[in-house]
Amino acid sequence: MNNNKQDVMEKIISLAKRKGFVFQSSEIYGGLNGCYDYGPLGVELLKNIKEEWWKFMTNRSDVEGLDASILMASTVWEASGHVENFTDPMVDCKSCKARYRVDYLAGMIQSKKKSKVFEQLLESGLSDNFKARINSATGDDEQNELFVDIFESPADSQYLVAETNCPNCGNKGTFTSARKFNLMFKTFLGPVEESGSVIYLRPETAQGIFVNFMNVQSAMRQKLPFGIAQIGKAFRNEINTRYFLFRTREFEQMEMQFFVRPSDDKKWYDYWKAERLEWFKNLGMTESKLRYHDHPANKLAHYAKEATDIEFEFPFGWGEIEGIHNRTDFDLSRHEEFSKKSTKYFDEELKEKYTPFIIETSAGASRSFLAFLIDSYNEEEVNGEQRTVLKLHPKLAPVKAAILPLVNKDGMPEFAENLATDLRRRFKIFYDDKAAIGRRYRRMDEIGTPFAITIDTQTLEDGTVTIRERDSMEQIRIESSKAGSFISEKLL
Amino acid sequence: MNNNKQDVMEKIISLAKRKGFVFQSSEIYGGLNGCYDYGPLGVELLKNIKEEWWKFMTNRSDVEGLDASILMASTVWEASGHVENFTDPMVDCKSCKARYRVDYLAGMIQSKKKSKVFEQLLESGLSDNFKARINSATGDDEQNELFVDIFESPADSQYLVAETNCPNCGNKGTFTSARKFNLMFKTFLGPVEESGSVIYLRPETAQGIFVNFMNVQSAMRQKLPFGIAQIGKAFRNEINTRYFLFRTREFEQMEMQFFVRPSDDKKWYDYWKAERLEWFKNLGMTESKLRYHDHPANKLAHYAKEATDIEFEFPFGWGEIEGIHNRTDFDLSRHEEFSKKSTKYFDEELKEKYTPFIIETSAGASRSFLAFLIDSYNEEEVNGEQRTVLKLHPKLAPVKAAILPLVNKDGMPEFAENLATDLRRRFKIFYDDKAAIGRRYRRMDEIGTPFAITIDTQTLEDGTVTIRERDSMEQIRIESSKAGSFISEKLL
Repeated sequence: MNNNKQDVMEKIISLAKRKGFVFQSSEIYGGLNGCYDYGPLGVELLKNIKEEWWKFMTNRSDVEGLDASILMASTVWEASGHVENFTDPMVDCKSCKARYRVDYLAGMIQSKKKSKVFEQLLESGLSDNFKARINSATGDDEQNELFVDIFESPADSQYLVAETNCPNCGNKGTFTSARKFNLMFKTFLGPVEESGSVIYLRPETAQGIFVNFMNVQSAMRQKLPFGIAQIGKAFRNEINTRYFLFRTREFEQMEMQFFVRPSDDKKWYDYWKAERLEWFKNLGMTESKLRYHDHPANKLAHYAKEATDIEFEFPFGWGEIEGIHNRTDFDLSRHEEFSKKSTKYFDEELKEKYTPFIIETSAGASRSFLAFLIDSYNEEEVNGEQRTVLKLHPKLAPVKAAILPLVNKDGMPEFAENLATDLRRRFKIFYDDKAAIGRRYRRMDEIGTPFAITIDTQTLEDGTVTIRERDSMEQIRIESSKAGSFISEKLL
Repeated sequence: MNNNKQDVMEKIISLAKRKGFVFQSSEIYGGLNGCYDYGPLGVELLKNIKEEWWKFMTNRSDVEGLDASILMASTVWEASGHVENFTDPMVDCKSCKARYRVDYLAGMIQSKKKSKVFEQLLESGLSDNFKARINSATGDDEQNELFVDIFESPADSQYLVAETNCPNCGNKGTFTSARKFNLMFKTFLGPVEESGSVIYLRPETAQGIFVNFMNVQSAMRQKLPFGIAQIGKAFRNEINTRYFLFRTREFEQMEMQFFVRPSDDKKWYDYWKAERLEWFKNLGMTESKLRYHDHPANKLAHYAKEATDIEFEFPFGWGEIEGIHNRTDFDLSRHEEFSKKSTKYFDEELKEKYTPFIIETSAGASRSFLAFLIDSYNEEEVNGEQRTVLKLHPKLAPVKAAILPLVNKDGMPEFAENLATDLRRRFKIFYDDKAAIGRRYRRMDEIGTPFAITIDTQTLEDGTVTIRERDSMEQIRIESSKAGSFISEKLL
């Protein structure tokens, strides 16, 4: 990330806090890593993104909505493979019982110290394969990876175990060799706190859809192909949280699982791949900052037959904001196997019973939020002065219009307040009667308010107001009674 | 609950599942106690309730929105008092390490066995005070409470400890005496699993608002009085989940905290108390089934100066659906004390710095959902046939209109589908071309769809359609192009 781009991230984070988009969670207590709170403007932007997704995905006859609980039976995560595979290697300190991810331990060792450890490792009875890697490993990332791999090999880990201090109690040589530790947050349900009562905070919303496939299909009398859409929070105990809202521990997903005949999988995969990119474009995201990243066949997840990421060009590089996957019959088959309940569908047309294939569209609501915020951020020079403006699509803008009475003249505040009250019945409105008009415009530009309605002396004479459009800064004059329908039309 | 009323609950639960309002969480795995999934119709009803609340509470200049994270720093819960006071008494089995709530253990002992245990207790060296209570205790609830109290008294618990079997390992006499166990779900954040990394799933959304008071106030340049509104999930490890959605382990709250001058507390308490009852009434909830339950002074929570519940008459009795509380300066003072950061406000008018008082309106979204569902449920006789109808306010109804082409005549399905596509841009629409029209009407009545639009032969001649209103079952004929604005008007 070059300086200029890093600047943009810092400006966005600063604006987000200053203007009430995003605060660090529990900030007055020093903050909680990887968790964020959406402030007054942030919650509106996030709500608008989710609402646009919901309308786009569910205002059609072949997609149903769902809102499953965050807590689910732990068997769900056995069937999904998360209990077994959603892991990082961890070690326990035998002395103080603290538990660490190995990559976290590796990251704590300074480079200089690390080189020394590696030197000594070369002289210990290390496997030749690791010796070769030590000689070629350059850079922190590669060295850390090597550190983790050696720790994970019972035959080679002794020396590292003996030489590593526990960051908690300070003792040396007290670590166990590494074992897999799950990234799911676990908790205990009910009055008994033992292994049988362990449940997990869902690490993805998708499973809530899979296990409700039969319920939704029969309640709604749906026929294939049809989909189930859901928006909700998910949680991952990430060690490397980074890039503000990009990788967090608590985040929100917007997922849709589309159930199809196995032979139709390619057709629907292509359909949703195209639809989902369109969605971002239609909401004004810059086309040149959007791309597909198709997963090569040898990099596909175990459940996937075909997969692509929709990526956005963040200041820190291209990053996934949505994944489209052909998940085959993997999920429903696994849940049938683990629950012993049929997840098959009888196709009346084909007179055939089969396990549907699933085409998944999985978007990050929090990541989309960050992408829209960054993409809309502009600094411009206007008449020799700089203005910061969020060029958010009017549908997404947190505040739809500002009401700005020009002077404090008899009847003008009353007129302005009545107009605000009237428009508030339908839109999020900001009323501002303080400071010079130019400064009030800038405030509205900075939070992306698309329309600024000024009430002036002419308003009191003929009932007209001026509406200034945020991006072009052009003004038109219309009857105040038409301001509502003017805004409505821009939101269609 | 008499049979008839129990019937109603059973009918509601059955309809909820059959029609896709509510499913048990993880149902294919036997269900997860105290957690529910909202199906396609449920998610729309819940969304509508939340949206109406959000508009009512935040479409005004003196209330801001917020969406804080579910995971918060654990100090938040120390300051709030939850770590210390949000507890139930628990015992550990020294043999198998299982942990039980004492009331759960008590509940597991059969009445007959319990009487025998109490008889033996009378002969042991029990305190006189407990002996007297044993002699007067009648009924399961009283006996359980006594059981818990004895377990909690170190001096008196020995005999009970010696005589109680662990339900997990079966061993006898292996329990510790009782200590307090927290009702918050706990988990571990980060790579280290030890006491320092314990965090909690929030048991209420309110604290996310309190800790953001200064952030919101300064970002939005708000002056007192103003409020912060938030909708979000909360979690409580309840042992006694009951009455379907009424008491669950995962639930959603709609809370608003209104910050006021200490001397204005009574005024604003009365204001919000009245406003919130109006909200339920305006959305069609039966007035005679709503009441205030003012808390008597000696029953107030430690933070409250005045408190009332808005109660709804459920089939199982009157139950709280919202609480309005004067929380005084308790919350902000505690957070100032624990965070060492000022939570005081400088009042420019009074030229005075003080800790604001808080008037809280705390509604259950899930409980409101249950109340609206129950209140709208009706069984009626129409022309000698019974119909089930959910008389939901059109704003809350999951589906706003059904499109029902009468016969499969040339051009009619096309006309109907075009109308459906057009209306779907603005409303949730259900298209149904199967079965006799009477049956199709009944289906829509049962899920509370306020308008049924039929397309018939006359439609093809003059472009008019009939609209049937759900409750009155009256029909009018209008131009199909006006169907959209007809529905819109009913949603204002």
